[in-house]
Amino acid sequence: MEVKRPSDTLVIMNEMVLPNDTNTLHNLMGGRLLHWMDIAAAISAQKLAHAACVTAAVNNVSFNQPIKLGEVVTLQAKCVRSFNTSIEVYIEVWTQNLIKGKGEKVKCNEAYYTFVALSNEGKPIPVAGIEPLSDDEIHQYKTALLRRQLKLVAAGKTSIHDTPELKAQFEKWISGEDKLMEI
Amino acid sequence: MEVKRPSDTLVIMNEMVLPNDTNTLHNLMGGRLLHWMDIAAAISAQKLAHAACVTAAVNNVSFNQPIKLGEVVTLQAKCVRSFNTSIEVYIEVWTQNLIKGKGEKVKCNEAYYTFVALSNEGKPIPVAGIEPLSDDEIHQYKTALLRRQLKLVAAGKTSIHDTPELKAQFEKWISGEDKLMEI
Amino acid sequence: MEVKRPSDTLVIMNEMVLPNDTNTLHNLMGGRLLHWMDIAAAISAQKLAHAACVTAAVNNVSFNQPIKLGEVVTLQAKCVRSFNTSIEVYIEVWTQNLIKGKGEKVKCNEAYYTFVALSNEGKPIPVAGIEPLSDDEIHQYKTALLRRQLKLVAAGKTSIHDTPELKAQFEKWISGEDKLMEI
Amino acid sequence: MEVKRPSDTLVIMNEMVLPNDTNTLHNLMGGRLLHWMDIAAAISAQKLAHAACVTAAVNNVSFNQPIKLGEVVTLQAKCVRSFNTSIEVYIEVWTQNLIKGKGEKVKCNEAYYTFVALSNEGKPIPVAGIEPLSDDEIHQYKTALLRRQLKLVAAGKTSIHDTPELKAQFEKWISGEDKLMEI
Amino acid sequence: MEVKRPSDTLVIMNEMVLPNDTNTLHNLMGGRLLHWMDIAAAISAQKLAHAACVTAAVNNVSFNQPIKLGEVVTLQAKCVRSFNTSIEVYIEVWTQNLIKGKGEKVKCNEAYYTFVALSNEGKPIPVAGIEPLSDDEIHQYKTALLRRQLKLVAAGKTSIHDTPELKAQFEKWISGEDKLMEI
Amino acid sequence: MEVKRPSDTLVIMNEMVLPNDTNTLHNLMGGRLLHWMDIAAAISAQKLAHAACVTAAVNNVSFNQPIKLGEVVTLQAKCVRSFNTSIEVYIEVWTQNLIKGKGEKVKCNEAYYTFVALSNEGKPIPVAGIEPLSDDEIHQYKTALLRRQLKLVAAGKTSIHDTPELKAQFEKWISGEDKLMEI
Repeated sequence: MEVKRPSDTLVIMNEMVLPNDTNTLHNLMGGRLLHWMDIAAAISAQKLAHAACVTAAVNNVSFNQPIKLGEVVTLQAKCVRSFNTSIEVYIEVWTQNLIKGKGEKVKCNEAYYTFVALSNEGKPIPVAGIEPLSDDEIHQYKTALLRRQLKLVAAGKTSIHDTPELKAQFEKWISGEDKLMEI
Repeated sequence: MEVKRPSDTLVIMNEMVLPNDTNTLHNLMGGRLLHWMDIAAAISAQKLAHAACVTAAVNNVSFNQPIKLGEVVTLQAKCVRSFNTSIEVYIEVWTQNLIKGKGEKVKCNEAYYTFVALSNEGKPIPVAGIEPLSDDEIHQYKTALLRRQLKLVAAGKTSIHDTPELKAQFEKWISGEDKLMEI
Repeated sequence: MEVKRPSDTLVIMNEMVLPNDTNTLHNLMGGRLLHWMDIAAAISAQKLAHAACVTAAVNNVSFNQPIKLGEVVTLQAKCVRSFNTSIEVYIEVWTQNLIKGKGEKVKCNEAYYTFVALSNEGKPIPVAGIEPLSDDEIHQYKTALLRRQLKLVAAGKTSIHDTPELKAQFEKWISGEDKLMEI
Repeated sequence: MEVKRPSDTLVIMNEMVLPNDTNTLHNLMGGRLLHWMDIAAAISAQKLAHAACVTAAVNNVSFNQPIKLGEVVTLQAKCVRSFNTSIEVYIEVWTQNLIKGKGEKVKCNEAYYTFVALSNEGKPIPVAGIEPLSDDEIHQYKTALLRRQLKLVAAGKTSIHDTPELKAQFEKWISGEDKLMEI
Repeated sequence: MEVKRPSDTLVIMNEMVLPNDTNTLHNLMGGRLLHWMDIAAAISAQKLAHAACVTAAVNNVSFNQPIKLGEVVTLQAKCVRSFNTSIEVYIEVWTQNLIKGKGEKVKCNEAYYTFVALSNEGKPIPVAGIEPLSDDEIHQYKTALLRRQLKLVAAGKTSIHDTPELKAQFEKWISGEDKLMEI
Repeated sequence: MEVKRPSDTLVIMNEMVLPNDTNTLHNLMGGRLLHWMDIAAAISAQKLAHAACVTAAVNNVSFNQPIKLGEVVTLQAKCVRSFNTSIEVYIEVWTQNLIKGKGEKVKCNEAYYTFVALSNEGKPIPVAGIEPLSDDEIHQYKTALLRRQLKLVAAGKTSIHDTPELKAQFEKWISGEDKLMEI
């Protein structure tokens, strides 16, 4: 099976916040941003899979900062890790007020989306692997497994005793070996 | 502070899947569904807060089942618990093929969204409390705190030692007292 | 032929009024509301027919009250009566300002839409009957025939002498037996 | 008060039926057409009133003929009659398949919409009168009053004894003086 | 091959500028107008070709005048000349403020779009010729050839020595025989 | 006045072609692409001007290649040259079929758009200059003046004798010094 670099799957999108994207406070509605993130992430997954990719899950997304009418939103997506037929994609979002703000980009959002690659008949098909390169990519590659296990345990579908990596992480949190560790 | 029942915040939406909502496999795109869920949940949060409510976070969402062109999607949202200025909303999604399928509703999706209530000046404001009534509502009310703590610990922002309820849950999972427990 | 209750065909939709739905006075445009009503009514008709249903006619619709930007519009549709291959659906619309108005629902609109059920080849097909239950449903069931006849007579397509029920209603209006009678 | 000809208020629109305008049978959805008719009619009313005009009512609309994906829809609207602050607009709709059909226009739809002219403060304001010219325009001008009265009587808001013109029409239908008369 | 008059291909569209069509200065976005012009011109080309017509080129378009939220935009398109399988269409755009401006139409825009007629298999097919009638139509018919040649020369695809008509025009500009001549 | 590099104004957009963007041949409609190009170019112009920028003109755009449903369209825009208050932006467009085509990008389109920078009161304001760096950027910077002059001469607004650079280019074309020269 072919192996690709995360950078091979990089997707950049820029969108301008128009009136219909906003709520009554003139901020971008969360749902519209979730939609844009899904499109950027789906294109990234398709760059890995060369097949139609459908959204299988969305991990915790936080909205740290309101995005205002007229601002330019930049989305950047790249594949983190694949698990046979599924792909985890990492998306970062920045906002920029080109008119008032002289253009500083402010990070306002990040998330992990999971996709499944499908054949033309709609059956899951295996995808290429990911070989991480930078330190960040390697860290994300490792924690992808923890996120996957945490999702199953928190959904009551798997026992912690069947997810040894997550169990180890729990024990590090409890023992204080990892005081503040992002997974 | 006023207290409301989850049922006071119930919101039902029905949407028909139109061509532009679908991908090349003629399935509803995940991003469109995330957008609809955000609107249903925001209306529910506003029923509790009587104030503008903006999306603060989206918890794990799973897409279990493809939704096809022409199907009718039913979304149901209600508030689970409030934490001073923030509100957790639970959303369930069913799909129905009224033409071929004689109308059986199939559950395809559930998620928790978190909103913050804002004043007209955009400052967070306190909202009414939630008093759960049914067994399901009571269970969700309790686990809302665990989801909130898990989000902070998994983001590396809080130590497990500052979230005693989550720590207790971790210990139950590890000891096997809770073998399969959904939070 | 199967018979259903109006409540078996109930459809509830909630929509938030966004900027692009409004005119220059910041009120919901009539045409957008007519479009939402058509979707809600079409889903209701499909719940009766279990077939594709296309709009055949729209009866008098009155817009009693402006609906403002940011308000939540609730639509409720249910089938009133079927005539072989056609179905009359009754739609009511309420508006609610959840932020300023503490949530009182104000009724702003009602209408009757008529649909025809079609086979996959696009030919009209017979649909289930309706058995009204509440007093309101029974009244609407009876007057559905009058509305159907009035439409034909006012369009110059049928003589009043071929629509005995409508003729009787005309005579009651003229004799004063029904001074103010809604049909 | 100024008087205008119907032709002074003529509005022509052409729209191409795109995928998202269609249902699962690839026909234009009724609600989309109602929306287009509302926009065409609102522009026509504004040509008479030189003020914002909001939809007050939609009279019986019939959909005689499916409109297919890719066809060109032509809408033509003109003002029929004004009643102080309200305006009745007549809309005709044709469809044309420029690719297969060599361009014959087929009439598929007609309707009357009623608008109210509003000041900037949202209060109803008087509008110019209409002076009909052609035979068709004169007939529509006369029957506009009957349609207005019929709407009130059928809604149970007015007695037939307070609408002498409609009462006379009822009597002509019953006596057979007008066997088939469109109003 | 059949020959048609430009007036046989006339298309009129009216659009109301809604909030989502505007930028942060509340003016119609240029891209939205380009889109509307493309639809009007494509319908006009299809009236000549009775075949699917796809955009092949857009000539210089100038935006002379801002178009404001709530204004009515009138587009008028007609075919100028055909070259075997391609068709040049001329589009004019006016704007009108029916509420404040008492309805004067102000011309704000004109452009030439080029389309290619395609068979169902997507191959270019020959179209009817154009026979211009009015002086303006005859002038545009003649200059259509110059615009076509100028496009090729300015793109570096053809030598001026292979486009004798354009070369003659260049010489008239240089000699001053045509001081100010629009092509 | 500040001077910027073209690369400081680079904007990349990726869009997925959805059903409603396509015509009956399942190709992306030209008007939709013109709209996307306008948004990408406007963001690029705002990166130079730090002010609202409105479309002033669109130069010859050619559509060389159909773009199919489901393909990913990449747009890249950067500023070429500014003339006091106006800015010329160059846009390139590629298409990619990630599913069938293994991801080769095919260039399908390029264009020049001109924008004017406006103050909050809607008056034109001066913008930063551009300092081209690469050979391509330097060539485009020079020919920007020719394009500007050609637009004025071809519109019959300026004499060729008032645009010495364009006159020199005409003479090079005629003399054969520049046989095939793209401007």
